Amino acid sequence: MLRSLTRFFILTLLLVGHVVVASETTVERWGIFEASWQGPTNGNPFTDVTLTATFSQNNTTHEVTGFYDGEGVFRLRFMPELTGDWHYVTHSNRPELDGQSGSFVVGPPSAGNHGPVHVHAMFHFAYADGTPYFELGTTCYSWTHRSDAQEEETLHTLAGAPFNKIRMCVFPQDHPEKNQRFFPFEGKPPRDWDTTRFNPAFFRHLEKRVGQLRDLGIQADLILFHPYGKKWGFSSMDAASDDRYVRYLVARLAAYRNVWWSLANEYDFIREKHESDWDRLFQVVQHSDPYGHLRSIHNGTLIYNNTLPWVTHASIQNGAAVLDPERAMIYRDVYRKPVVFDEVKYEGDIVKRWGQLSGEDLVLRFWNGLIAGCYVGHSEIFRATPDPWLAGGGKLRGQSVLRLAFLRKIMEEGPADGINPIDKWQDERTAGVPGEYYLIYFGRKTPKSWPFRLYKEGLKDGFSFQVEVIDTWNMTITPVDGVFTTKKRDAYYFEDAEKKAVTLPGRPYMAIRIKRVGK
Amino acid sequence: MLRSLTRFFILTLLLVGHVVVASETTVERWGIFEASWQGPTNGNPFTDVTLTATFSQNNTTHEVTGFYDGEGVFRLRFMPELTGDWHYVTHSNRPELDGQSGSFVVGPPSAGNHGPVHVHAMFHFAYADGTPYFELGTTCYSWTHRSDAQEEETLHTLAGAPFNKIRMCVFPQDHPEKNQRFFPFEGKPPRDWDTTRFNPAFFRHLEKRVGQLRDLGIQADLILFHPYGKKWGFSSMDAASDDRYVRYLVARLAAYRNVWWSLANEYDFIREKHESDWDRLFQVVQHSDPYGHLRSIHNGTLIYNNTLPWVTHASIQNGAAVLDPERAMIYRDVYRKPVVFDEVKYEGDIVKRWGQLSGEDLVLRFWNGLIAGCYVGHSEIFRATPDPWLAGGGKLRGQSVLRLAFLRKIMEEGPADGINPIDKWQDERTAGVPGEYYLIYFGRKTPKSWPFRLYKEGLKDGFSFQVEVIDTWNMTITPVDGVFTTKKRDAYYFEDAEKKAVTLPGRPYMAIRIKRVGK
Repeated sequence: MLRSLTRFFILTLLLVGHVVVASETTVERWGIFEASWQGPTNGNPFTDVTLTATFSQNNTTHEVTGFYDGEGVFRLRFMPELTGDWHYVTHSNRPELDGQSGSFVVGPPSAGNHGPVHVHAMFHFAYADGTPYFELGTTCYSWTHRSDAQEEETLHTLAGAPFNKIRMCVFPQDHPEKNQRFFPFEGKPPRDWDTTRFNPAFFRHLEKRVGQLRDLGIQADLILFHPYGKKWGFSSMDAASDDRYVRYLVARLAAYRNVWWSLANEYDFIREKHESDWDRLFQVVQHSDPYGHLRSIHNGTLIYNNTLPWVTHASIQNGAAVLDPERAMIYRDVYRKPVVFDEVKYEGDIVKRWGQLSGEDLVLRFWNGLIAGCYVGHSEIFRATPDPWLAGGGKLRGQSVLRLAFLRKIMEEGPADGINPIDKWQDERTAGVPGEYYLIYFGRKTPKSWPFRLYKEGLKDGFSFQVEVIDTWNMTITPVDGVFTTKKRDAYYFEDAEKKAVTLPGRPYMAIRIKRVGK
Repeated sequence: MLRSLTRFFILTLLLVGHVVVASETTVERWGIFEASWQGPTNGNPFTDVTLTATFSQNNTTHEVTGFYDGEGVFRLRFMPELTGDWHYVTHSNRPELDGQSGSFVVGPPSAGNHGPVHVHAMFHFAYADGTPYFELGTTCYSWTHRSDAQEEETLHTLAGAPFNKIRMCVFPQDHPEKNQRFFPFEGKPPRDWDTTRFNPAFFRHLEKRVGQLRDLGIQADLILFHPYGKKWGFSSMDAASDDRYVRYLVARLAAYRNVWWSLANEYDFIREKHESDWDRLFQVVQHSDPYGHLRSIHNGTLIYNNTLPWVTHASIQNGAAVLDPERAMIYRDVYRKPVVFDEVKYEGDIVKRWGQLSGEDLVLRFWNGLIAGCYVGHSEIFRATPDPWLAGGGKLRGQSVLRLAFLRKIMEEGPADGINPIDKWQDERTAGVPGEYYLIYFGRKTPKSWPFRLYKEGLKDGFSFQVEVIDTWNMTITPVDGVFTTKKRDAYYFEDAEKKAVTLPGRPYMAIRIKRVGK
């Protein structure tokens, strides 16, 4: 009963139950190997039955936890990180599920499959195969809690958008309550739930959407808890229910290579939980996930201690922090981890202060974040849209998206290991790789000229550079004629040997890109 | 052999060796009780002889470590935190020092003695008796490594200056090497030291100066290690020597109520040590100091993890962080501890970028830090002074000092628990206590008017406020006629019921102080 789920997805985009055992099953690297067996249906199979398996290849082993998928079916999923022959054997407190074993072959990844995303070079990200991952996220809290038509429309929009990550809630929000198709537990809405019994249909639907995101090259930053569903009560369960839910979710979804775990949105606004609960839940995720997918927690006004070892990167809400790169880079310095400003206010036109950025305002924040060596998140909320992108997905209306596609291109053309602030605490507008690559962003300033001047780190006399002027809003890249050649100016800076300057158009939102071309 | 060291200091400003036993000795609360005995002089008394004592009053006990003070004298110091009768008994591996006991009476503190400074209200400080302590520090790294005349001049300057904390190095710097009077260890300069044998004269001199600071109401932020004395080698000792030195220093100085422990200046520039060394040294201090004096570490470019439990407050070098309050408050949010920007560049005129602030530049940084709910440190370095204040103390020449005295007055007239940002991440210029007290700082902006408008937190319609206009540079406080009365404006703000505005002079460095006066 084994099959490559990845290939299966490509065929049907639907997850189904039983698959047939085949001793020579081939799974792609970072794809999903899945096995299932019929087991007991009496009692509560979610809580009474244990099922784990040891997957091994030579000295590499992973302990993987299975899950009950309803109708007597017990299922195990595994994401192989190595090609070659793998073997597994199951362990269960029920004889029919214990000691089941098998082998399968893992082949190379298919085109576009670079594996899961991990932290790279302290402040950045990369796929497991080494391909750079330049985070450019959006947020649609409840896009998987809508009609099929709207969910398909969201996927269609994402297919044409620049985003490579989406933040999305597992649990439904309070609104719109009438259309809520699936609930995570058995029971009756709004709050009569048996939290010991999961609703497999809810999770199959989520998995289907996560798989579709994967096939679009988009990371699913799954928000495990949020404070926006008080009607349903999923943010105020007891600790045992929280832990059981988290373990079940991880057992089902960890094999999807594009999953990230976001413990909560605005965690501090979930008044029923204390910080020790989040510490514990982080560790439940950490110890349940065999693959170490990225883990973070998103704040309201109180910042979680992101230095703790179970946090892989900081997920920050602070719109003011990306109003200038010096602010943003403080978080980086303090955490020594990647910093993603997942919420910096949204493009929109509502009366709330958090939803009235212009397109220019939001794109400015992305560029400031980039210059700080961090990453920034998008969303939008317009009054003309009763179910805005932020809540329900659908169509994008804002002015920022095109410019963010342009920004993504700039990032992808840049250094593979990302860029970092240069001359930190002295120069708030320059990032890059010393001696090799510089990106200078002027924000709302409107200079007419920039004297070619670079901080000394990585430079010597006689290095030559090509310069381009970038209009980040109008999305143009204009090469500057000739090359600039470094000459030491003083104890701190190099300048052009002929003291040349770069002419700028006197408009806001301009940047300069400088690439080493000689010596 | 007991006496109140505090009174002794008042008499002579010098610490001497043996004192006579007196069974009815009286010590003031947070003063120093001292006892000494003759002990062995053979072998190495610094390392061969152990001496501790248990001090007790009812259920309160403290384990205190003594130290060898040379010439056969073993000494114990204790800072009593409670008034009333105390008893002590010694423990030693030498019979003549073991089981020595005695009693003494602790009376009320003398005028100006408020006890040691501790963290208060998460982000602020207070003395042990509850008196607010509004940190306003300066730095003279090596003022205790100069001639007696210059050191006395420094004390004279400090007596007339606004500073209530001074950062100072225990170990000497490389320069000026010729005048170095005392070294901490037996041996020969520059590097032939026996780190198992301390030089009591070195420490007695340091103690004398720390005691004089105490009598001036100034906290001594003792810098235990620094990277500026490579010639002497005290930053590259082995771990056993480091630990022994730290324990000896703490044994001698912890009883001084005005001591703070700064593990290092620019810790990351001491290349011989790793972060694990600092973790360990922090814990050596923490476990050696019976009183829990404040503990911090000052960074170069790499920020130490100030969330760790042995760090009582963040001691930050980052001049750019106090160029606007939003930057500064990020550290506060992240650490949930007091943040002291101990180095924000210095007032001066040298070619180095860190020593060329104008007086206005430095005072601006202090005010920005204040609005962020943090604290800022001063120093100065002028070319006309061969031994500048930053290195050797002496006289102050800068323009900032007077304005910092004015700032200290503003702080002391403000709320006892300190002020905090109001409407964080939305309003970068307002701090205070919601509904009660507001301080609005305009920095380099030059508004001619400020429409009376306050964030809703703590406000209702009909509250009345008195308003003053403060010129932080020219040091004037100008009351605005009449009162301002709150009326709800919109979902976020209150304004004056008659929509009154406050007239401003269109100069930089202005502030507005708003105090609740009615309803």
